[in-house]
Amino acid sequence: MLSFVGLGLCDTESITLQGKRAIEKADHVFAEFYTSRLLDANADILEQFYETTIDICGRAEVEQDPTAILDAAETGEAAFLTAGDTMISTTHTDLRLRAMERGIETRIIHGVTAQTAASGLTGLQNYRFGKSVTLPFPENHGATGVPPSVCDSIDSNRSRGLHTLVYLDIKAAQDKYMTATTAATLLADSIEDTLGVVVARAGSPSPTVAAERLSTLASMEFGDPLHLVVIPASLHHLEADALSALTNASPQLIDDYRE
Amino acid sequence: MLSFVGLGLCDTESITLQGKRAIEKADHVFAEFYTSRLLDANADILEQFYETTIDICGRAEVEQDPTAILDAAETGEAAFLTAGDTMISTTHTDLRLRAMERGIETRIIHGVTAQTAASGLTGLQNYRFGKSVTLPFPENHGATGVPPSVCDSIDSNRSRGLHTLVYLDIKAAQDKYMTATTAATLLADSIEDTLGVVVARAGSPSPTVAAERLSTLASMEFGDPLHLVVIPASLHHLEADALSALTNASPQLIDDYRE
Repeated sequence: MLSFVGLGLCDTESITLQGKRAIEKADHVFAEFYTSRLLDANADILEQFYETTIDICGRAEVEQDPTAILDAAETGEAAFLTAGDTMISTTHTDLRLRAMERGIETRIIHGVTAQTAASGLTGLQNYRFGKSVTLPFPENHGATGVPPSVCDSIDSNRSRGLHTLVYLDIKAAQDKYMTATTAATLLADSIEDTLGVVVARAGSPSPTVAAERLSTLASMEFGDPLHLVVIPASLHHLEADALSALTNASPQLIDDYRE
Repeated sequence: MLSFVGLGLCDTESITLQGKRAIEKADHVFAEFYTSRLLDANADILEQFYETTIDICGRAEVEQDPTAILDAAETGEAAFLTAGDTMISTTHTDLRLRAMERGIETRIIHGVTAQTAASGLTGLQNYRFGKSVTLPFPENHGATGVPPSVCDSIDSNRSRGLHTLVYLDIKAAQDKYMTATTAATLLADSIEDTLGVVVARAGSPSPTVAAERLSTLASMEFGDPLHLVVIPASLHHLEADALSALTNASPQLIDDYRE
């Protein structure tokens, strides 16, 4: 059996009771932290919490040759852990299909996602979000600034009155996480200088939410990673009231976007 | 302090460790199950699990006069529980703002959502979903069939290559939950007879996933609620492979939608 277990966002307390039980029952525990990571717990902390050894897999061990994971799942109970929900990344669907091809039973134990948290923490309504995008480090898409596909998605969402959740690039191997400051700088140069909402450390006990024009966010600091940015379309009155109450945004700025 | 706690999707095991701790610490526990409910646990089961009394609030006690909740949060630790994540419904953002107006500290303890689960269970990629919609019972929008706004959102998403998550109406007071069978019947009459994906009991140990044309889904049964429907756009090759592996869909049907 291969159990895909989402750890949630922050620390050892962010997992579900069902997920914790699956890890405790597993004969072999694997994890990957290259697609995301927990805000306040690393592999050592997880190993201490579960009093077990956790095999941390790099990209190659998950995507090219996951034989060790599949062998363990074929002969016993294996758990594969990721931050957030395990099936948000395409790569884990691929791993699940490889397991099924070998006749291995699989199950998904879902986790809390940054998408859910971003909506809840900002008061921006879930059903008013369009397609989400990822903003890559410029050096990673072989160009400068923001890829046209990201600008197109934001524009297309806004023209339909929909918010855009912008995930920020992660280079876990180099311990490098794009900050909202960098993201706002890039976006202010590529789309108009519109309202942006930053969510820092979503899922932690003390998340930060800020709403300002992108050019203003570009000169602010938001502390430790992970960060997210939302580019809102116009604001429903309750969304405007929520952003006013939950951030230090000027009433004038919020009113400019109020429907 | 008012803690908004998401219970997740299925039963007493679906909550996070952090959420469980918040309930155990609370002086007063409130819950509402009119926006959603757990698949396999009711208020009695929760009360036994937590060895506490839970005040179940109707719509009026949350949306019109939440004085009891706010009074409890002002004088002690109050927890407000919902299925899934607590901030998916607009109404809970409103309750949070009312609490803040009274100077009450609030926090959100996120839960797993049906949206996360639907993406993970189908292999349809999270970043390829557009705006989601809710399909109401025809008698509740004063007309027959599917509201034009729902058809428009599905069409608009598909024209951009994006999937649509269709939440199905809930009338918890009457214990009435729209089935995927009903939804497929309504949708087959209102949009073209396209590929639909049903997810029944997302977040439970034995979720059902089916992919067929809407007219076929309209003649199938999917067991106990809750159900969801996804109307996919074209399928990325990994999405097509996932739907083939995870459902009984004919290879021909899947290939018709493969990019």
